[in-house]
Amino acid sequence: MEPYKKAEPIAEVLKRGEGRATVRGWVHRKRVLKEKIFILLRDSTGVVQLVLPRDRFREAEDLNLESSLVVTGSLVREPRAPGGVELHVESIDWAYSGEPYPINEDAVAADSEYLLDVRHLWVRSRKMQAVLKIRHTVFGAIHEYFRRSGFYEVHTPMFITAAVEGGATLFKVDYFGQPVYLTQSSQFYLEVLIYSLEKVYVVAPSFRAEPSRTRRHLTEFWHAEMEMAWAGMEDAARVGEEVISHVVEKVLEERQDELKLLGRKTEYLERAKPPFYRVSYDEAVEILRRRGVSINWGDDIGADEERALTLEFDKPLVLYGFPEKLKAFYHRNDPRRPEVTLSFDVLLPEGYGEVIGGGERIYDERELVDKIKRFGLDPRDYWWYIDLRRYGSVPHSGFGLGVDRLTMWITGADHIRDVVPFPRDVRRTTP
Amino acid sequence: MEPYKKAEPIAEVLKRGEGRATVRGWVHRKRVLKEKIFILLRDSTGVVQLVLPRDRFREAEDLNLESSLVVTGSLVREPRAPGGVELHVESIDWAYSGEPYPINEDAVAADSEYLLDVRHLWVRSRKMQAVLKIRHTVFGAIHEYFRRSGFYEVHTPMFITAAVEGGATLFKVDYFGQPVYLTQSSQFYLEVLIYSLEKVYVVAPSFRAEPSRTRRHLTEFWHAEMEMAWAGMEDAARVGEEVISHVVEKVLEERQDELKLLGRKTEYLERAKPPFYRVSYDEAVEILRRRGVSINWGDDIGADEERALTLEFDKPLVLYGFPEKLKAFYHRNDPRRPEVTLSFDVLLPEGYGEVIGGGERIYDERELVDKIKRFGLDPRDYWWYIDLRRYGSVPHSGFGLGVDRLTMWITGADHIRDVVPFPRDVRRTTP
Ligand SMILES: [Mg+2]
Ligand SMILES: [Mg+2]
Repeated sequence: MEPYKKAEPIAEVLKRGEGRATVRGWVHRKRVLKEKIFILLRDSTGVVQLVLPRDRFREAEDLNLESSLVVTGSLVREPRAPGGVELHVESIDWAYSGEPYPINEDAVAADSEYLLDVRHLWVRSRKMQAVLKIRHTVFGAIHEYFRRSGFYEVHTPMFITAAVEGGATLFKVDYFGQPVYLTQSSQFYLEVLIYSLEKVYVVAPSFRAEPSRTRRHLTEFWHAEMEMAWAGMEDAARVGEEVISHVVEKVLEERQDELKLLGRKTEYLERAKPPFYRVSYDEAVEILRRRGVSINWGDDIGADEERALTLEFDKPLVLYGFPEKLKAFYHRNDPRRPEVTLSFDVLLPEGYGEVIGGGERIYDERELVDKIKRFGLDPRDYWWYIDLRRYGSVPHSGFGLGVDRLTMWITGADHIRDVVPFPRDVRRTTP
Repeated sequence: MEPYKKAEPIAEVLKRGEGRATVRGWVHRKRVLKEKIFILLRDSTGVVQLVLPRDRFREAEDLNLESSLVVTGSLVREPRAPGGVELHVESIDWAYSGEPYPINEDAVAADSEYLLDVRHLWVRSRKMQAVLKIRHTVFGAIHEYFRRSGFYEVHTPMFITAAVEGGATLFKVDYFGQPVYLTQSSQFYLEVLIYSLEKVYVVAPSFRAEPSRTRRHLTEFWHAEMEMAWAGMEDAARVGEEVISHVVEKVLEERQDELKLLGRKTEYLERAKPPFYRVSYDEAVEILRRRGVSINWGDDIGADEERALTLEFDKPLVLYGFPEKLKAFYHRNDPRRPEVTLSFDVLLPEGYGEVIGGGERIYDERELVDKIKRFGLDPRDYWWYIDLRRYGSVPHSGFGLGVDRLTMWITGADHIRDVVPFPRDVRRTTP
């Protein structure tokens, strides 16, 4: 049997605290004293302090940071050790030392571009490990929420020929000599599928050829989108606040250690329960003007305005009723007030801003074709989307949620790339 | 309140079988007799027979197939109706008739290319609905298996610069004027992440510029991939048989109605429990030669050979130990027999063939660099992949599972495009 097969997870060994144990992992810290060598050994579950006596020095000499190791020894309670337990090593059963680890404390402190250059190593850090565990919980909770709520998981194409959001930020692919594009949103395909399954969701990558580097944009991101037949704007907004609060609740339940390691204060997370605040576009303009922001009715609410707005509220808010020209053509205009649409964004507090965009879609064929033309687009480019309104259309609503952005807020990250294992932006496609 | 808000799912109404009810859905069939109109109304949960008396004829006249409808009436037990219940309609509360539905029975019988042209409508068919529900269960069961088994869900980039499988079938993207490629496999990135989380999985699209149209290839497909630290080939094969059997068990538990609707015989599914057969490449060559297939040791086992092989077995099989040159460079050679690799495929029975490819990866730096060169590749193209072996490498194994192919077998489909809502191949990128 391979020597690593009998190893136990470090978290379990710490919990037991006595007897003999074999553990495996990577050298996180190494401190050589006159009589002893202390090694902090890391695995995916925790960190344990190894103690090697003088007569093991020769074997331990080669060990660099991040060397991999399998060791056996006795557990001894030691209040000064992390987790209150030390492993007194009797044998090194397996080791792979490699070369001196290139990431040093200066690079970490500077949080420099270099950490992106060596992302394939930096993901080993305790910080990235914590973020990735939270991400795992976030995605699990999203699937759990939708499945429990009667949504079917579906899969929509990445290769598309019709743009949902307009063509400016589409990536072009050489498709056997023909141009096709990478999807920015699965929405149109979800609208197709409600005629079969009524309530559908998808969790998948979306792509945006965003040429500027901002704190909250990447060129590829994970998008959780849903669409429901027989539903209006407020129905979709309710699903939005429910899914966010479910995710946050799960993270608070399962990831306290990781939130602590990241230094994330949880008061805003704990308050993120439905109902979120409802703020109309009109009210938002009023609030911003009272705060001295120069904005007129009809102007966009961009990143800066969102930031200012969220700082007024102690939990997420549903911002609804945007003027027609601020939202894509497919949003249904409010029949009682046609200059605004039945659209909404969910904004996260603490300055984070937009995480969901959604609303009710136009379901009437004539209304849709007229609006496509009013927006200067060609109905022929949307033939199958229009077709959905030619054969038994129904009122329906949906939204797209940026999962990386949600994770960014939950972890308290400054930059979206801090919550993505291998972030992609205009300058970076490697590692 | 909107008239559709008070509707109940058809499956629940059928179960209740009496009293008054409001239902909503789409006209699946319509039959006009002298005294009555019968309408089969479909929603995502089932089909109910509506009965409209003579005095409702005028309202029902406009209703085409697939018109959407909300109706209220009384439930009456009627053994000849589907589900044993009829709804005697008292009011049509809402209707959207649209135009005559273009898909007719001839097109369906011919299963023609036309059904792909109108895929945005064809997904409404009872057959596609059943397939999509099974797909939903398949994906849910994959996540459930991995999460229960201690794997972390991670997300790896779609935009890449280093090819896992070699460059021949990569799609090129115009990335702000530079060429990047779409991923064919997340494997290299999963190998990065085992140093942080030990056991990781991802469920995401992969892309393959496959220029030929076959029954089991699409240009984009959903890939479930996993990688484990401290694991050998057989460990990965066991995870493979466990995840497949868990998925099949879930489908048998939750989707009997859908399997029946598709006419799928379930005997092979019921038998797909671990352990699957283990067949070495050497044995496979022997079996094939005994069957009269012309194959020599060292030749590839392609689609035809796989088909012949699987017909010899009554459940899935793990085919292992392929000659070095038949598998990509990263597969570890068997130290006891260096001409073969510690690689395996899982083949599905009934002629379906390969659904998983995996194995143990080379963990030694020198061994990896030597093999990259032996394969005529340039180590500089794999700098960060090699880096993983410079800092505390560990033995590790993993695999990729084609989820669409698994769904194809489970549903008994002839063609992979039959189980994908919007299939993409060399000729088709729309709808
Ligand atoms: Mg906005
Ligand atoms: Mg093969």
